[in-house]
Amino acid sequence: MHIGLIGLGRMGFNMRERLRRRGIDVTGFDRNREVTDVPTIDELLASVPAPRLVWVMVPAGEATAALIGELADKLDQGDLVIDGGNSRFTEDHKHGELLAARGIHFADCGVSGGVWGLENGYGLMVGGHPDDVQRALPVFDALRPEGERADSFVHVGDVGAGHYAKMVHNGIEYGLMQSYAEGYELLAAKEIVTDLPATLRAWQKGTVVRSWLLDLMVKALEEDPGLASIEGYVEDSGEGRWTVEEAIANAVPAPAITAALFARFASREDSSPGMKMVSALRNQFGGHPARPARRSHSAPDALPVP
Amino acid sequence: MHIGLIGLGRMGFNMRERLRRRGIDVTGFDRNREVTDVPTIDELLASVPAPRLVWVMVPAGEATAALIGELADKLDQGDLVIDGGNSRFTEDHKHGELLAARGIHFADCGVSGGVWGLENGYGLMVGGHPDDVQRALPVFDALRPEGERADSFVHVGDVGAGHYAKMVHNGIEYGLMQSYAEGYELLAAKEIVTDLPATLRAWQKGTVVRSWLLDLMVKALEEDPGLASIEGYVEDSGEGRWTVEEAIANAVPAPAITAALFARFASREDSSPGMKMVSALRNQFGGHPARPARRSHSAPDALPVP
Amino acid sequence: MHIGLIGLGRMGFNMRERLRRRGIDVTGFDRNREVTDVPTIDELLASVPAPRLVWVMVPAGEATAALIGELADKLDQGDLVIDGGNSRFTEDHKHGELLAARGIHFADCGVSGGVWGLENGYGLMVGGHPDDVQRALPVFDALRPEGERADSFVHVGDVGAGHYAKMVHNGIEYGLMQSYAEGYELLAAKEIVTDLPATLRAWQKGTVVRSWLLDLMVKALEEDPGLASIEGYVEDSGEGRWTVEEAIANAVPAPAITAALFARFASREDSSPGMKMVSALRNQFGGHPARPARRSHSAPDALPVP
Amino acid sequence: MHIGLIGLGRMGFNMRERLRRRGIDVTGFDRNREVTDVPTIDELLASVPAPRLVWVMVPAGEATAALIGELADKLDQGDLVIDGGNSRFTEDHKHGELLAARGIHFADCGVSGGVWGLENGYGLMVGGHPDDVQRALPVFDALRPEGERADSFVHVGDVGAGHYAKMVHNGIEYGLMQSYAEGYELLAAKEIVTDLPATLRAWQKGTVVRSWLLDLMVKALEEDPGLASIEGYVEDSGEGRWTVEEAIANAVPAPAITAALFARFASREDSSPGMKMVSALRNQFGGHPARPARRSHSAPDALPVP
Repeated sequence: MHIGLIGLGRMGFNMRERLRRRGIDVTGFDRNREVTDVPTIDELLASVPAPRLVWVMVPAGEATAALIGELADKLDQGDLVIDGGNSRFTEDHKHGELLAARGIHFADCGVSGGVWGLENGYGLMVGGHPDDVQRALPVFDALRPEGERADSFVHVGDVGAGHYAKMVHNGIEYGLMQSYAEGYELLAAKEIVTDLPATLRAWQKGTVVRSWLLDLMVKALEEDPGLASIEGYVEDSGEGRWTVEEAIANAVPAPAITAALFARFASREDSSPGMKMVSALRNQFGGHPARPARRSHSAPDALPVP
Repeated sequence: MHIGLIGLGRMGFNMRERLRRRGIDVTGFDRNREVTDVPTIDELLASVPAPRLVWVMVPAGEATAALIGELADKLDQGDLVIDGGNSRFTEDHKHGELLAARGIHFADCGVSGGVWGLENGYGLMVGGHPDDVQRALPVFDALRPEGERADSFVHVGDVGAGHYAKMVHNGIEYGLMQSYAEGYELLAAKEIVTDLPATLRAWQKGTVVRSWLLDLMVKALEEDPGLASIEGYVEDSGEGRWTVEEAIANAVPAPAITAALFARFASREDSSPGMKMVSALRNQFGGHPARPARRSHSAPDALPVP
Repeated sequence: MHIGLIGLGRMGFNMRERLRRRGIDVTGFDRNREVTDVPTIDELLASVPAPRLVWVMVPAGEATAALIGELADKLDQGDLVIDGGNSRFTEDHKHGELLAARGIHFADCGVSGGVWGLENGYGLMVGGHPDDVQRALPVFDALRPEGERADSFVHVGDVGAGHYAKMVHNGIEYGLMQSYAEGYELLAAKEIVTDLPATLRAWQKGTVVRSWLLDLMVKALEEDPGLASIEGYVEDSGEGRWTVEEAIANAVPAPAITAALFARFASREDSSPGMKMVSALRNQFGGHPARPARRSHSAPDALPVP
Repeated sequence: MHIGLIGLGRMGFNMRERLRRRGIDVTGFDRNREVTDVPTIDELLASVPAPRLVWVMVPAGEATAALIGELADKLDQGDLVIDGGNSRFTEDHKHGELLAARGIHFADCGVSGGVWGLENGYGLMVGGHPDDVQRALPVFDALRPEGERADSFVHVGDVGAGHYAKMVHNGIEYGLMQSYAEGYELLAAKEIVTDLPATLRAWQKGTVVRSWLLDLMVKALEEDPGLASIEGYVEDSGEGRWTVEEAIANAVPAPAITAALFARFASREDSSPGMKMVSALRNQFGGHPARPARRSHSAPDALPVP
C-alpha cells in the first residue's frame, strides 16, 4: 500500500516512520524542506497510485481547511482523504461535503498517543463510511499498537464521529491531568510527605490511580526535579474548549473538565481583572488593604486557634 | 446604658462612634493609644457599671481566645461578654463554656456592614440565651440600621448560631463577589462593550442584579478607573474556608462558593506547582513546549476557521 | 409618541402598561387574542405613524428570527426595529444586516427587571447607532425607573452590545442565585440556625449581601414556607450558556457562573449516566455496593471519631 | 514470619489470602465467624509470636479507634501495630501516641488496589519509624505486586504520612473517575457515537487516557450494558472530603477534585433545597413556572436559531 501524508510535524513525522516500519509506503510532504519527501503537494499527488489515499496531518482550523480546499481541487473521483488532525467535528461535516461534491471520499480519524506513538502505536477513533474505513484498514493497523484491533481502534460512526470521540478523549485528558496536578500540589504543599517523586513512583503498580499519565509524571519529575525549569503557565489547544461547549449544548454537567480548562486560563493571567475587582470590593466594604505584598500558600488573615 | 468595648480597629472604632451617637455610653479599649479611652483593660472594667456588658471586637482566633481567657479571670458573676468578631462558631462553644464555669454569660454576634456600618448601621446575627440577648437589645438597636428590627437583627439560636449565620453570610458574599468579578472580567475582555463603568452603573436601578456590592463596584471604578492601582491578588479571612468545610461536613454541594475560594488561592500563586505539572505532562506526551512567552487571554493553539 | 409593540407575554404585557402610564401611545400585537390590541401585525403597522418604531418582545431564537424576517418585508425605509427580547448577540448582527439591506434601522435592548418592571421600572442596556438610540429615548425613559438616567440606562455600543451586556448580566445573575442557594441549603442543613426565614430577613438591611435577589428570597419563603411546593428542578433559558461560551471564547475563567449552570443541568437529571459510571467504578475496584437505598445528606461510609 | 490480621472484610480477607500464598503465616480475626481463624482477639494475640506484628484492617473512625484502644491494653512493649485501613492521618498521630505511651510501636499504611489486590498486588504507602518499616518489610513485599519494590511501595515519612499519601491518592481517584464519567455521559448524550462501549475499549491501548480505571469502565459496561442496573447515586467514604479540607488548609486550589466530591453529594439529593430556592427566585422575578414536568437533557427554554 502506498499513501500520501501531508504534514510532518511532531505527530506526522513519527507516523510516517511507524507506517514505513510496518510496510506501508509513504510519500510525505511538509513545508519544512528538511523533512519533506517531495517539494510540492502536486508531486505528492503524482506519486501516489490511484485511487489515492491522502492522510492530512496539519494544524486544525485554517491550515486544515485550506488544505482540504486545495485537495478538493486537485484530487480525483474515488480518492480518499483522511483528516488525522485535531479538527473540530463540525469542520468534518463541511470538509466531507466539499469533497463529496467532487466525488472524493472523506473520513476523520482522531489519533492519540503523542510523540510516543512511534514506539507504542496510536489509539485511533475513525468516523466515515464503512467502505472507506475498510479501505484504509491497513494504514490503521500499521499505526495502532500490536494486539487486538478493538483495543486501540474503533470505527465510531459517520463522518465527524472520529473527531468527536477524540474531542471527548481530550476533554477527559484535561480532567485527568488536572486531578493529578491538584494532588501533586497538595503533596508538595505539605511537609509530611518527605519524598514526593518516590510517592508518585510507588503509585505506578497496584494502585487505583495507575495510568500512563502517572508514568509520565514520574518521568517528568525524574528529568526535572521539582519541575524547576517549567513555568506554571498552560496553553490549551481547542479540544478542551469544544468539550465544554458540547457539554453545555447537551446539558451535561462537566465540572471537573471545565475546572481543568479554567485552571489553564487562570494560569495565563498575571493579574486577573476579576480578582482585581474582588480585591477592590473587599477594600470598599471592609477597608481590607487591596495590595498586600505577594506571598503564596498564605494562611488566612486570622486563623482560629487550633 | 454603659458598656465596655475592647478592640477599636476598622470595625470597633466605628461601632463605638455609632453607639455614642445613639445614646449608648461606651468605654473603649485598644492597644493603640491614639484611639483608646482607657490605658488598660482593668480600667475599662472598673469604669463599666455591674453587671457589666463587655463587647469583644478583636481579630478572630488567638487574639479573641486570649482576651476571653483574660475576661474569664477578671469579670464577675453575672457579667455578659459578647463576641462581635468573626470567630469560628466552634470557638464560641469553648468560650461560652469557659465563661459559664465562672458564672459569666456569653453571646456571639455576627456583625456585617464593614466600614459603612457607622453611617448605614450594621446587620446583626446573634446567638445566645434569650435573657442575655434581651439584656443587650439597646446595644443591638443602636448598632443596626433604622427601621424594623427584624430587617437587620436576628436572634438566630444558641451560642455559636450567630457566628454560624455570619459565616454562611460571608460564604455567600464570596460567591456574589466572584460572580460579579467574572462578569466584569468578561465585559472587560470583549471590545463590544464600549463603556464598562457606565454599564455597571446602569445596572444599579431596575435590574435583577442590583445590590449593595454592585453599588460598591461602581464606586470602586469611579475612584480608580480600570482598577489600575490594584493587584489581582486576594486574601481570605477564614470564613470562606469554614463555609466550605461546613458544606462538606453536611454533604451540601457548594460549587460557586468554593470556586470563589479557590480563585482567591489561585490569585496568590505566582507559578502554581499543579500547573507546572500539567505543563510538564503536555510536554511529555505531546512535545508541547512547556514554557511559552507569557501572554494573557490568548487564543488556543490552533483555532478552527469560524 | 406612538410605537408598535409585538409580543405581550410576561414581559411585553407589563411593558405596554408602563409605557401607557407614562404617556407613550402603544399599539400592541400578540397571537393571544385576549391581550392583543389589533388582530394582525399588518394592522399594527398601519396604526403606527411613520417613521415607525416597532419594539419586538417575543421569545429569543426562532420566534424572533421569523418576526424580524417578516418585518424586513413589511416595514419601510427609515423605520426602526428594537429587539428587547433575550436574543443572543450574534443574532443581532444578522438581524441588523437583514434590516439594513432594506434601509430599516435596528437596535437591540437588554431589558432586566422581570415582572416587577411594571412597578419598579426596567434596567436597560442598548446597542445601536447613536441616532437610533436618541430617537427611542422617550421610550427608554418611560420604561426605566425614575431618577438619573445613567443609573438604569446605558447605550453600551453598536448593534449587539445591548444583548451582550444583558447576557453577562444574566450570567452574573446565575452566579448570584447559586451563591445564595448554597448558603440557604447549608443553613437549612444545620440545626444550629433555629429560624431560617428570619435569618435571611435580617440580612436585608445593613449587611454586605443585601440585594434585590435577597429580598425576593425572603418573599419566596414568606409565601411558601420551606419552599414545600417547589421541586429542586431548574430550567435555563440560554443566557447562562452563552455567557460560559463567551468566557471560553475569551479565555476568561468563570467557575462560579459555570457552577451555577451545571447545578441546573444536574438538578434536571433523575439518575445521571456519569454518576452511574462512578458508582460502577467504585463497585469494580472496591466492591462497594452500587445501589444503596436512597437517603440524602448522608454521612460518609466511615467517619473518623471526632 | 507470623502476623495477626484483624478485620477480614472486602480488603482484609483478600490480603490474608495473598499473604499466605506468599509465605507469610497469618492468624486472622473477624467478628464474622465464617471467616475468622480464631474466636477472639485474645486468642489471636496468644497465637502470634513476640514481638508481635498486628495488622489492623477495620473501618476507619470509631471501629479503628476502639480497636487501637483495646490493643493498647493488650499488647506488650515492643509489639508493632500497623493500621492499613483508611484512617484520617490526624487519627494516626493520636493512635501512635496512645500506643507509644505503652512502648508499643505504630505505623500507618495506605493500601490501594481494591478487591483486585489479591491477584495484582497492592500499592502501599507507609508512614512510621524506619526501624518499624524495616521490620514489616516482608509483609509489605508479600502484599505489593511483583517487580521493583519502589514501583509499588514507599516509605513516605513519619507516622501519618502513609495515610496522608493515601488520602491524596484517593482524592485524585475522585477526580479521575469524575473526569471519565463526564466524558462518558457526553458520549452517551450525543448520538454521533454509535458504539460507546467499543469507543471506550479502543482507548485502552495507545491513547493518552489509558489507565486501570479505564479498563474497569470497559469491564463494567461489558458486564452491565448501559449500566442499566445501577442508580446514579454515589456514596463517599471520607477521603475525598479530607483531601478538600487539606487543600483548603494549605490554600491549594483543587477545583476538579472538589467538583467530584460535590457531584457525589448532588447525586444523593432527590430535590435539593438550594435548587428549590433558585427555582423559587426565577419564579419571583421572572414569573418562570417553578415546577415544570421532569425531563432530562432538555434544551433551554428558548434556543436561538442556529
